[in-house]
Amino acid sequence: MTDAKKPIELDQLVAANDLVGIRLWLAEHPPYEIADALTRLPPQRAIIPFRLLDKERELEVFEELDPSQQQAILMGLRDSAFRELLEKMGPDDRARLIGEAPAKIAARALAGLSPAERRVTAAILGYPEDSVGRFMNPDTVILHRNLTVARALEVVRAKGSEAEIVYVMPVVDDGRRLSGMVRLSELVTSNPDTLLKDLVDVFTPRVYATDPAEDAARLVQEANLVALPVVDSEERFLGLLTFDDALELIEAADSEDIARQAGSQPITGHYATVGVLRLARARAVWLLLLIIASTLTINVMQGFEATLEQVTALALFVPMLTGTGGNVGSQSATAVVRALAVGEVRLRDLPRVIWKESRVGLLLGCMLATIALIIGSLLVGTAVAAAVALSVVAICAWASIIGSTMPLLARRIGVDPAVVSAPLVSTLVDATGLLIYFSVARTVLGL
Amino acid sequence: MTDAKKPIELDQLVAANDLVGIRLWLAEHPPYEIADALTRLPPQRAIIPFRLLDKERELEVFEELDPSQQQAILMGLRDSAFRELLEKMGPDDRARLIGEAPAKIAARALAGLSPAERRVTAAILGYPEDSVGRFMNPDTVILHRNLTVARALEVVRAKGSEAEIVYVMPVVDDGRRLSGMVRLSELVTSNPDTLLKDLVDVFTPRVYATDPAEDAARLVQEANLVALPVVDSEERFLGLLTFDDALELIEAADSEDIARQAGSQPITGHYATVGVLRLARARAVWLLLLIIASTLTINVMQGFEATLEQVTALALFVPMLTGTGGNVGSQSATAVVRALAVGEVRLRDLPRVIWKESRVGLLLGCMLATIALIIGSLLVGTAVAAAVALSVVAICAWASIIGSTMPLLARRIGVDPAVVSAPLVSTLVDATGLLIYFSVARTVLGL
Repeated sequence: MTDAKKPIELDQLVAANDLVGIRLWLAEHPPYEIADALTRLPPQRAIIPFRLLDKERELEVFEELDPSQQQAILMGLRDSAFRELLEKMGPDDRARLIGEAPAKIAARALAGLSPAERRVTAAILGYPEDSVGRFMNPDTVILHRNLTVARALEVVRAKGSEAEIVYVMPVVDDGRRLSGMVRLSELVTSNPDTLLKDLVDVFTPRVYATDPAEDAARLVQEANLVALPVVDSEERFLGLLTFDDALELIEAADSEDIARQAGSQPITGHYATVGVLRLARARAVWLLLLIIASTLTINVMQGFEATLEQVTALALFVPMLTGTGGNVGSQSATAVVRALAVGEVRLRDLPRVIWKESRVGLLLGCMLATIALIIGSLLVGTAVAAAVALSVVAICAWASIIGSTMPLLARRIGVDPAVVSAPLVSTLVDATGLLIYFSVARTVLGL
Repeated sequence: MTDAKKPIELDQLVAANDLVGIRLWLAEHPPYEIADALTRLPPQRAIIPFRLLDKERELEVFEELDPSQQQAILMGLRDSAFRELLEKMGPDDRARLIGEAPAKIAARALAGLSPAERRVTAAILGYPEDSVGRFMNPDTVILHRNLTVARALEVVRAKGSEAEIVYVMPVVDDGRRLSGMVRLSELVTSNPDTLLKDLVDVFTPRVYATDPAEDAARLVQEANLVALPVVDSEERFLGLLTFDDALELIEAADSEDIARQAGSQPITGHYATVGVLRLARARAVWLLLLIIASTLTINVMQGFEATLEQVTALALFVPMLTGTGGNVGSQSATAVVRALAVGEVRLRDLPRVIWKESRVGLLLGCMLATIALIIGSLLVGTAVAAAVALSVVAICAWASIIGSTMPLLARRIGVDPAVVSAPLVSTLVDATGLLIYFSVARTVLGL
């Protein structure tokens, strides 16, 4: 990679207010690296190097930024520069920016647009948040199915340089209904007299504008598409979801799932620029619910206080047992949530998943019980050790079943399976695991 | 999406051995959906519908499968069909299949190839596993920098239909050194007399064949590339990492990180077809290490046995405290591991990350301590409740610091930060958290 070659970082140059140095740095770096460096600066400082960019590269850098960073940059621009930048943006990026901006910026932005661009933007904003309509790009070359290859290439030559980069193009009928897609490379290599309708692939996947954006992005990935056509309810072509937007959607979805798996709410924005308060807020909700839920463990412990007083050694193993149960349950939950996310498991697989995970849990439980038996025998004697070992088997099987079932049940009731986080499973397994432990101990020890 | 339209599933048709039905089903579905359905069948059954595919679609479906599934299919084919399929595969897919296959299949595969194809495959296999060299496609149209646009288009017409789908092409000098990339759409829309060297972008990112594949894939995403050129140490062009392979690499890397975060080893292959033993093995290693590490909690509890006997109520809060500490630590660890994976945090940010996370932990700790104080006062009285509440503050701050520091330290010593899993952090915080709790309790209660 190119990382080793740049000893001086942009933030140092900005801190030193070295305008000549900044200009040089900008000239030597590609747009995506400039955008990355701007992201690491505090918003009020990012405007300094941004203003020094030459006009052609300004847009490319700007479109690489997060909506929140774009807002900060826009706030720092004069009115004319503000309008110019927005007018040049791709309609999908612009709509996303305006959709997420505070009302004041959104109004200023819409007011500054030309009527044509304002119409396109408003149309995109009409689709529900997180629908693919919000992410599609309507700005592409559209070809009629009765064109010949030679005529189609003329259309591309005439319009191609204004539109977004063209790799594939929609082919439509008289009613603008999508017939299929044609690749530019097919046009270049095909006989000039061939009609487009004879070239298009009958299996072209398509999505409706109101479909969830994440599902559409996963389809782009599954079907290896450079761009997925988006249509309205009457199959009329509306725009393209391109591979780069799909990649971004998948990365964002994975980041969200990962955050949820740890019991955090997803935060948008760059880790480096997110404040302490926002981070704490994202994590607080689940922690609060879980500490309240963990009151159950106190109740269980209180219910068995007499047992604990008779055999105080039982208390020693509580952290080990709750820890192990939590670990096994988290593993199952994480595996099933991921399998659901990438489409490897579906709702109707529920019985098979439970059957598989309970066997996995039982197997792991037997293995861990052996260790627990050895550790327990060495530290407190065989009777308590036997109770602990038996509990480990039961808790592991139980934790696997809980961990694997809950994400599928969440999906069934229409909740994102990723909310079945490792901490949630651990907390549930803690209380029920203790119940199992003390019941087993009472039986084994004859109390 | 198209899901609602297919009431009959392929597995039902295969189970009923309904060959006519299978043929019909295959004709009605695109290759990526066929591949998905084959994946859900047991390997020895997947060969039945695969043999019924028509020749043109066979390859497309086959290339969509995982290497392990490809092996199972190959084993079920006659020698001639086996050779024909391998010869038609893309060199990168073929190399990956052979690289991961058992020696017997690999030898049979290499032996069946034509000398030219065998050379290309062997070259790809020469690169280290997980390097981008293993994933690049050498089969593309290469253009000389002194060509005109018109000549270049003739080259594309002559060679374009044999090579992989062409969206962008490498432009090289006499020594095959990469000058940059040119898009097919630029060729189509540019003046025919322009020289390619005047068209190529000076900022073309490139990677070396030995660079890690995941880093290259993230670069494809960051720079929105349809294909990233791969060069050797002398900057000579070797092949392209295309967006679809990058997408697959990122999805696989995310799946691996997610599995590691839950304390599992990543498994390759589809969840539905992975056996119980393999799942258990992937999860066993960490569980074993962690249950042994959790012996520390027993030691801590034993060390404070006298305190526990004096105030038995202290034992009641052990699961709540270890649970909360684990949750807070997991959140920090997960956030930092993800920020590292997507490049939002780098090693040199360590002090800033610790400073940020410790403030987040302290804030969350104060909030949770309030709840703990209320719950504790209601259940066991204010003295013990005060000890619990103070411990919550300290444990949360400590857990955040542990959780955020460890992934960065792992990166520093060259270990994948994702091995700093939620269960690992929880287990470490369990023992140290108990130490904090009993020390605080002794001081507060004056024992």
